[in-house]
Amino acid sequence: MSAPRPGGTGRVRMTPDDRREQLLALGVRLLSDRSVEELSIDMLAEEAGISRGLLYHYFGNKQDFHRAVVRKAADDLIRVTAPPEEGEPLERLARSLEAYVDYVVDNYEGYSSLVRGAGSGNADLREIYEEARTVLTDRIFAAEDDRGRLLDALGFHDTPAARLMVRGWSAMTEDVVLAWVRDPAEVGKDELLLMLTGALPGALAGLRLLDS
Amino acid sequence: MSAPRPGGTGRVRMTPDDRREQLLALGVRLLSDRSVEELSIDMLAEEAGISRGLLYHYFGNKQDFHRAVVRKAADDLIRVTAPPEEGEPLERLARSLEAYVDYVVDNYEGYSSLVRGAGSGNADLREIYEEARTVLTDRIFAAEDDRGRLLDALGFHDTPAARLMVRGWSAMTEDVVLAWVRDPAEVGKDELLLMLTGALPGALAGLRLLDS
Repeated sequence: MSAPRPGGTGRVRMTPDDRREQLLALGVRLLSDRSVEELSIDMLAEEAGISRGLLYHYFGNKQDFHRAVVRKAADDLIRVTAPPEEGEPLERLARSLEAYVDYVVDNYEGYSSLVRGAGSGNADLREIYEEARTVLTDRIFAAEDDRGRLLDALGFHDTPAARLMVRGWSAMTEDVVLAWVRDPAEVGKDELLLMLTGALPGALAGLRLLDS
Repeated sequence: MSAPRPGGTGRVRMTPDDRREQLLALGVRLLSDRSVEELSIDMLAEEAGISRGLLYHYFGNKQDFHRAVVRKAADDLIRVTAPPEEGEPLERLARSLEAYVDYVVDNYEGYSSLVRGAGSGNADLREIYEEARTVLTDRIFAAEDDRGRLLDALGFHDTPAARLMVRGWSAMTEDVVLAWVRDPAEVGKDELLLMLTGALPGALAGLRLLDS
């Protein structure tokens, strides 16, 4: 047991909302090396040096706490993987993918526990995870000003079949990156990014067979 | 409540092993339209028309029962998706994929509950599922007599990078087929099979970028 540390008693008094945000950020950090199931209110209370009672005041019950932390983790993932404003479509995809890979490396335990359905007892966690994946995938269909959509740049149309396969590419990416973090074998990060970027037009290539 | 049906009292007396197999097969059938969590010993007892006590005798506790049923379901999946002996590699892949799609259509509830980690409270279920997926994926690397490996036929070598991407294609396939069963949109089964088959060389295409 570590000794209690002063919490929220700094020079500038934080608002309850700021304090809650700070506690959530700490919860997300704790998910970097533990699964969602392993993350408890007791643990966060000890790390933050405040009472369990106060944490329950901020977060309600354990399920609400998990939901709030996972929601913040998902928001972080969406933010850090935002593609850069400039560049060719595939280059912007590669940069976004690199941020994704870095995120998974840094947050492996919590992220992989979410992917493998650790929170399946809590349907809300599943929903937050699915929503975040949809946001990441939909970027490929989003028209962004005059820079054009990635899908168009690759020469494909926005059809139900294309949406299925882009979704599939996203599942592939998630699976491959998690497997690579567990065991990179002899594959370097640059190789990984090249393979995954090249696999998007590759996964869509089957669509051309439909026209022939 | 349905009336009890005679159990194991047919003309030919079944051995306990046969009886257990028959009960497992019934358990697997019950998974066609319910999740693993929803499958209970009580339900199987009622369907089979035998006592709960006798079922506990065959299967031990609920976790052991779930493990045995999921193991049998995984064995069924591996069996029905065995590629045909004859044909070109991609044709054999397409036939195996078709059997996989049919399996998912017929067993959607139980299969999807397993994929989304319904049994994550039971690490054994996850392991059985992972093992089955490995068997399906490894077929692509398996040398089969003089017919050659699919990987060779596609012009790729067996490298750690190729294994990562084939694994990724398998994750893509699983995700796309589950999404398609939930909502086929306007995509027909033949189109789905063409797209997924074409996506395997497509997913591997990124490997060629590594050599250039």
